[in-house]
Amino acid sequence: MIGTVSEDNQSIVDQLRRFVAQRNWAQFHTPKNLSMALMVEAAELMEHFQWLTAEESKSLTPEQEAEVADEIADVQIYLTMLADRLGIDIDAAIQAKIRKNAAKYPANAADGAADLK
Amino acid sequence: MIGTVSEDNQSIVDQLRRFVAQRNWAQFHTPKNLSMALMVEAAELMEHFQWLTAEESKSLTPEQEAEVADEIADVQIYLTMLADRLGIDIDAAIQAKIRKNAAKYPANAADGAADLK
Amino acid sequence: MIGTVSEDNQSIVDQLRRFVAQRNWAQFHTPKNLSMALMVEAAELMEHFQWLTAEESKSLTPEQEAEVADEIADVQIYLTMLADRLGIDIDAAIQAKIRKNAAKYPANAADGAADLK
Amino acid sequence: MIGTVSEDNQSIVDQLRRFVAQRNWAQFHTPKNLSMALMVEAAELMEHFQWLTAEESKSLTPEQEAEVADEIADVQIYLTMLADRLGIDIDAAIQAKIRKNAAKYPANAADGAADLK
Repeated sequence: MIGTVSEDNQSIVDQLRRFVAQRNWAQFHTPKNLSMALMVEAAELMEHFQWLTAEESKSLTPEQEAEVADEIADVQIYLTMLADRLGIDIDAAIQAKIRKNAAKYPANAADGAADLK
Repeated sequence: MIGTVSEDNQSIVDQLRRFVAQRNWAQFHTPKNLSMALMVEAAELMEHFQWLTAEESKSLTPEQEAEVADEIADVQIYLTMLADRLGIDIDAAIQAKIRKNAAKYPANAADGAADLK
Repeated sequence: MIGTVSEDNQSIVDQLRRFVAQRNWAQFHTPKNLSMALMVEAAELMEHFQWLTAEESKSLTPEQEAEVADEIADVQIYLTMLADRLGIDIDAAIQAKIRKNAAKYPANAADGAADLK
Repeated sequence: MIGTVSEDNQSIVDQLRRFVAQRNWAQFHTPKNLSMALMVEAAELMEHFQWLTAEESKSLTPEQEAEVADEIADVQIYLTMLADRLGIDIDAAIQAKIRKNAAKYPANAADGAADLK
C-alpha cells in the first residue's frame, strides 16, 4: 500500500511524527489505541450535530464552525497517524475505494438511494 | 477557514463531488448525516482491532491490512466530504491544531504522558 | 458501587457469565476490549438511523424495528458485561446520575434546551 | 416486541419519562438523535480506557471507577430512552439475542475465538 504521498500531506506526516517523538508518545500509539482515539474524536465531532436539525446543521454559526474545524483536525490527525503507523497510503486507498464504489453504485441505478459505504 | 488545498487533495474533493452529484446523493449529505456516517466508518475501522492485543495490532496480516486500508479510505472520504460541505480547509485546521497542541503539551513536560487531544 | 441488582437483571448477568465461560471468552473480555465492543455495537445501532430523516426515524417498519431491537440487545449485553466485569451496579449508577442531572438541569430553567448529559 | 419489563426497570423508565417531560425535551428525542447521544456517551465511556493497557483497564482506581460508573449510567439512560421511544422491550430483545448467539456460537466450537456479536 505504500505509495507516493503528496508533498503537503507528507509535510503533515513529518510534523506529526516529530510531535509524537518529542513527547515520547510512540509507546502509547499502537494501532489499536490510535483507532480508539480516532473514534473518540469522531464522537466529539458528531456531538456538535446531535441536537441540531438537519437544516440547522447546514448553517453553523462562526463559533460552531471553528469548534467543528478543530474536531475535524483531531480526526484527521489520528487518521493520518494511524495510516502512517501501518504504512498505509491514504490517497491510494481512496482511489481504490472510489473505483470500487463506482462499480458498486452505478451512477443511474443508485440515483437518490443514499448508501455510500 | 477557506484556504489553499493541495492539488492532490483538491482532485479528491472534485472526484467526490462528482460522485455524489452523479448519484443525486447531496440531499442525504447534511453535515449532521455526514458526521454520523463518519462515525459509523470509524467504528468499522476500530472493529478490526477490538479483539487484538496491542502487539497483534502492530503486525497485521496482508489481508487485515487491506481491509483496514479500505476502512481508512471510508473514514477519509466522509471526513473530506463533511469538511467540503462546511467550507472547512482541513490542512489549515490541522496547522492551527498542531500549534495549539504544541502550546498545550510542551515537549518536555508532556514526556510519556499520552493525551494528545 | 456494588449494590442490589434486580432479580431479572441478575438473571441476565448470570446467563451472560455462563455464556462467556462456556466459550472461554473471558480472556478477551478486558474492560478495555468490552468498551470497544460496546462502541462498535452502538455504531451498528446508529447506522440504522444515519440516512433517515428525524420523522422517518420515528416510524420504523416492523423489519427495521426488529433489526434495531437486535442491536439494542447487543449494546445492552456489552454494557451489562462491562459493568459486571468492573463490579459496577448499573441501577445504582443510574439513580446517582438522575439525582445529579436533576440538580444540574432544574426543570424550569432547562425547558426546551436539550442537553441531557 | 412489547413485553413485560421488570418492576425495577419500569421504575427507571418512568423516572426518565418524567425527567424528559418536565424539561420539555421530548421534541429533541427523536430515535435518530437518541442513537447519536447514545454513541457519544459510549465514546466518553471508552475514552477512559483508550490509553490504558489491557492490564491497567482491569484495575481502575476508585476515582476512575466512579467516573466510569457515571458514563455507564449515561449510556444506559440513553439506551433505555431509545428503547422506550421505539416500544422495544430490552429484556425480551436480550433473551432473543442470547438464543441466537447460542445457536451461532456452539459452546465447544467457539472455544477461545472471541467474536460475540
